[in-house]
Amino acid sequence: MNNVYDNQEFFEQYQSMREDKINANNLIENPIMISMLPDVKGKTILDLGCGDGNMDIRFIKMGAKSVLATDISCNMIEEAKKVNGDKNIEYKVLRMEDISNINQKFDIVYSSLAFHYIEDFDKLLNDIYNLLNPNGYLIYSQESPINTTFEPTKENSESKMIINGKFYYLFADYNREGVRHLIWNDVDVTKYHRTYATIVNSLVKNKFKIIEMKDSYASEEAIKLCPKYVRQIDKPYFTFVLAQK
Amino acid sequence: MNNVYDNQEFFEQYQSMREDKINANNLIENPIMISMLPDVKGKTILDLGCGDGNMDIRFIKMGAKSVLATDISCNMIEEAKKVNGDKNIEYKVLRMEDISNINQKFDIVYSSLAFHYIEDFDKLLNDIYNLLNPNGYLIYSQESPINTTFEPTKENSESKMIINGKFYYLFADYNREGVRHLIWNDVDVTKYHRTYATIVNSLVKNKFKIIEMKDSYASEEAIKLCPKYVRQIDKPYFTFVLAQK
Repeated sequence: MNNVYDNQEFFEQYQSMREDKINANNLIENPIMISMLPDVKGKTILDLGCGDGNMDIRFIKMGAKSVLATDISCNMIEEAKKVNGDKNIEYKVLRMEDISNINQKFDIVYSSLAFHYIEDFDKLLNDIYNLLNPNGYLIYSQESPINTTFEPTKENSESKMIINGKFYYLFADYNREGVRHLIWNDVDVTKYHRTYATIVNSLVKNKFKIIEMKDSYASEEAIKLCPKYVRQIDKPYFTFVLAQK
Repeated sequence: MNNVYDNQEFFEQYQSMREDKINANNLIENPIMISMLPDVKGKTILDLGCGDGNMDIRFIKMGAKSVLATDISCNMIEEAKKVNGDKNIEYKVLRMEDISNINQKFDIVYSSLAFHYIEDFDKLLNDIYNLLNPNGYLIYSQESPINTTFEPTKENSESKMIINGKFYYLFADYNREGVRHLIWNDVDVTKYHRTYATIVNSLVKNKFKIIEMKDSYASEEAIKLCPKYVRQIDKPYFTFVLAQK
């Protein structure tokens, strides 16, 4: 995983984007994650890619026993300690590739919009499985495979078009899994495209029981606040998985 | 499910298409189904949407004990009896919506490219579950959700385009599940679009254990015989599921 959040310019742009409450994290991703979340009361939680810790403080307010919140970015962990610190949350700089070093078991592993940055998904799932207590839950969101398949280039920066009044996205390379480059806040970000079938097979191979899979949709309220979210009907931004050990 | 195969003109055009060995059923779908097939030796098999029975006679040659092969189309069942008859195969005209009337249990339920014609997928899976012996297998193929999402119209009959030398399909409506109309061999055919997530959730809800999910790809040999199959890398025609009771 590349650590763009420790690029100072990127981090500041990202922070100002997140401070604006009208964004896809707040209006689309977070409500769906909350709706799929198992009961956290009295539970120990591991958060992978915790960012500024806004969910970790919520877990504690919802009655979680303790949270280990990890992120690759020192900037993010410093920010999280500052704005969302709590005696029952441990914030820790840790790459997701290194979680097998954690000497603790958890009832719930939670991860929001980080898994598409990870190259070796099978290893990640195996590590998570080993960190879960029996019957523990994995809940995560990622960019949807419908979304990660498209690699923007200088040539195709217009990734959508309207033909006779009907809206279409351009679509290609669904079966070509692997690296996708994109420029985000002027920084080159590397993501990994995996198909839905690969996600399912990796979960099955790593002995997870899939409970639910979901693609993102926008509520009427979200569409009112940000009209372009109506296009979630054509191409969901995010995919969500709830699975059990 | 609409029964276009009993429209005589459609049936004749379909038969002549299938007689040409260079088609996606023979070069793409069938090899993948065979590769995912559980051991059929000594097993009882139910085939849903058997067409001309070409797989049913293969099951018997591969050592299956017996096959009940069903299809909605009288034309197809007559053809199957004629060209692929065997004392251990019972060919029967039966709508997939009526399989709960079958008074027999099976080790394997097999279905090739028929489930996308069925509106109530949950009921179908529940019926299949009830027809399987303990630990029995469901193996099926359908048009891929990547493929069923697009509804061809007079306006967008050009469903693909090349931008700066790069190939793209037009893509829309992924989250709008339900009916899709298309004209095939001059007949209006109704299909149902379901997302990958819905397929997974329906299998889980109906107590199936998913073993493998796969999207179609074309072998080098298939691409040599039919160059357009190289586009399977962009948009797979078919999706396959192997699941267990």
